[in-house]
Amino acid sequence: MKLIIPENSDFSIDNIPFGIFSTPERTPRAGAAIGEYIIDLFELTNDGLKVDFDRSVFLDPALNRFIALGKNITVDFRIDIQKWLKQSLWSDKDFNRFFVPQESANMHLPVQIGDYTDFYASIEHATNVGMMFRDPENALLPNWRHLPVAYHGRASSIIPSGVNIHRPKGQTMPNGAEKPVYGPSRLLDFELETAFIIGRNSDLGQQISTGEAASYIFGMVLFNDWSARDIQKWEYVPLGPFLGKNFASSISPWIVTMEALEPFRTDTPKQEPEVLPYLQFEGQNSYDIELQVSIQAENEEESLVCRSNFKYMYWNMCQQLAHHTVNGCNVRIGDMMGSGTLSGPDESAFGSMLELSWGGKKTVALNNGLQRKFIEDNDTVIMRGFSQNGNLRVGFGDLKTKVLPAL
Amino acid sequence: MKLIIPENSDFSIDNIPFGIFSTPERTPRAGAAIGEYIIDLFELTNDGLKVDFDRSVFLDPALNRFIALGKNITVDFRIDIQKWLKQSLWSDKDFNRFFVPQESANMHLPVQIGDYTDFYASIEHATNVGMMFRDPENALLPNWRHLPVAYHGRASSIIPSGVNIHRPKGQTMPNGAEKPVYGPSRLLDFELETAFIIGRNSDLGQQISTGEAASYIFGMVLFNDWSARDIQKWEYVPLGPFLGKNFASSISPWIVTMEALEPFRTDTPKQEPEVLPYLQFEGQNSYDIELQVSIQAENEEESLVCRSNFKYMYWNMCQQLAHHTVNGCNVRIGDMMGSGTLSGPDESAFGSMLELSWGGKKTVALNNGLQRKFIEDNDTVIMRGFSQNGNLRVGFGDLKTKVLPAL
Repeated sequence: MKLIIPENSDFSIDNIPFGIFSTPERTPRAGAAIGEYIIDLFELTNDGLKVDFDRSVFLDPALNRFIALGKNITVDFRIDIQKWLKQSLWSDKDFNRFFVPQESANMHLPVQIGDYTDFYASIEHATNVGMMFRDPENALLPNWRHLPVAYHGRASSIIPSGVNIHRPKGQTMPNGAEKPVYGPSRLLDFELETAFIIGRNSDLGQQISTGEAASYIFGMVLFNDWSARDIQKWEYVPLGPFLGKNFASSISPWIVTMEALEPFRTDTPKQEPEVLPYLQFEGQNSYDIELQVSIQAENEEESLVCRSNFKYMYWNMCQQLAHHTVNGCNVRIGDMMGSGTLSGPDESAFGSMLELSWGGKKTVALNNGLQRKFIEDNDTVIMRGFSQNGNLRVGFGDLKTKVLPAL
Repeated sequence: MKLIIPENSDFSIDNIPFGIFSTPERTPRAGAAIGEYIIDLFELTNDGLKVDFDRSVFLDPALNRFIALGKNITVDFRIDIQKWLKQSLWSDKDFNRFFVPQESANMHLPVQIGDYTDFYASIEHATNVGMMFRDPENALLPNWRHLPVAYHGRASSIIPSGVNIHRPKGQTMPNGAEKPVYGPSRLLDFELETAFIIGRNSDLGQQISTGEAASYIFGMVLFNDWSARDIQKWEYVPLGPFLGKNFASSISPWIVTMEALEPFRTDTPKQEPEVLPYLQFEGQNSYDIELQVSIQAENEEESLVCRSNFKYMYWNMCQQLAHHTVNGCNVRIGDMMGSGTLSGPDESAFGSMLELSWGGKKTVALNNGLQRKFIEDNDTVIMRGFSQNGNLRVGFGDLKTKVLPAL
């Protein structure tokens, strides 16, 4: 059988992202996406493609042990998959063993995430939030241009695309009230982010320089950092976001490798003032990745509400990792580092409803006359991301999450 | 051979805490502390004490799978160990198989920690910090008496007692400077805390009530939340502590079960104003645990610098867990929840150098004419905790960490 890869597929032969899938017949295991199929990597390496490493890593329910083989193995393995696909060496009878239709598979978290850190690395987002909540004249706090601000998030509540969430409940302080109240969040929001997955362990006490950082980054996913703005606003002083965030965070199931994104490297925004030496770097350190958010109300069509780009991010991933480890904090394979909301310079590129509705002061138009200030019950939020250059396209697939009413 | 338990041992027969140890002959495995010995639980359950569950859990390098058996098994197992010890049923020849001297063993982290959360639950600590950094007249922020403020910490850099740390380096903004500088932290501090270990999984979306919370708490450890005050001060707005904390956090290696602490139950501080219904609770929800901190300079004797008590904590553990899950955030076996610095009402009970030296405004006297404002290179910080009522004593053992110069 011939493998047909639809034109404009996120999962072109130039991509080959890795993830964990299952079907009624196959236990959760490692796969690589190609077109509308998943390559079963355990089956592939049985007799399709011979490998020198222990192929039982592909039967793990997480990619950590595969990633731990190191880039010297995983990078070549991805190239070997591309060669094997081009040669179409499988028999008709083998096709169904090697290839599983994506529509018949269930996707899981791609890695066991030890720690999850979220940065705040978009100057447009930080400025927007600062203008709304603090001082429009001094929207950025004094540290913002000197270091990539970040905080620790909750790993246990990270879920893959397709898992529904319930509107969270919690404590909020209504405007003008004297006492806080308990109930469902009224200001539920998405945050358009990407995240990178750590591909190599560092030791406690070890610093990773900006120059070394790339060797510690396995790949990237799309990331929806769900936020309950009313809970967050009341709780976050002085120690930062907590229950306003940790009820759920959604990621796209396929890890797109940095090698697949290499053709889309681009410059990062100019940094003023000059950063300290440990944050300085050489070369082009960002990627041109178009990012989109759509909202789909129950029984309605999708409405595009945001088009942004990863390249707007002020603090690049190498700086983020260098900063994270400058004090000797160790990282482990599978750790996830969120970018922070990736807003762009134009209003159409704002990466959250908080910014799009300017704190609820205006409505965001959806198709068919619908409108939103924040996310309503039974809305589905869909994030997409892809890099394209002529016929060359590498994408992340959909990150789709439906919001059910509070329990 | 007869087992001799020293008088005043933290590890009396009323305690029986669980941990992970190794020796040159024994791979990391589960043990229970008794006097100056460790009971090898895999050996014990071979022919000393018969159990109905799969004893291979004791060969894991973490207690998670043992804890996952559930309190209906682990609580009885601890009682069976106590009975077995009282009967002294071992032969002389078996003694060295069952009992390993603590001095010949290496202690490891007792659990694999998925997520670590730190609360800010001492009203004395929050007030002290608020007085120093914000407004002495309004030291507590408006949310403080309405919810147990907390933030997520870093799990990867949690280390057991006995592991040395290096003074962290990082970015700070010196007073009066125009630009930040990079270098070793000048204001290294301890924070005297305890932490509880989650003993039961909850589901995403599930709330744990204050009444149910106890069934989710396996036990407690001492916790030193190392803090670099100068790094923290510059980085922490608006998203909370990050590199000022995540270079290392130290815990005592023995998990003292809640059942061992049961005889020391006591009242919690009165809460004013009344809290929301989901934070209300019944009964005595704290424990009378004396806590101490000593500093030992290189080649000097120890100096006691702080005596506090767990019972001062304003927000109890059941409230902490109810709040943590009120939005549906899930918890997993092995998760760790820090109390926050446990300062008491008197100056002698302040649980950090920040408070003891009042932000470096005064010196803290050590023995032999030494003095400190913060922690210096080659100082060892020792935390101890125990509950005592006449002859009944249950303790945590030492939490000891030496600070080496910056790398």
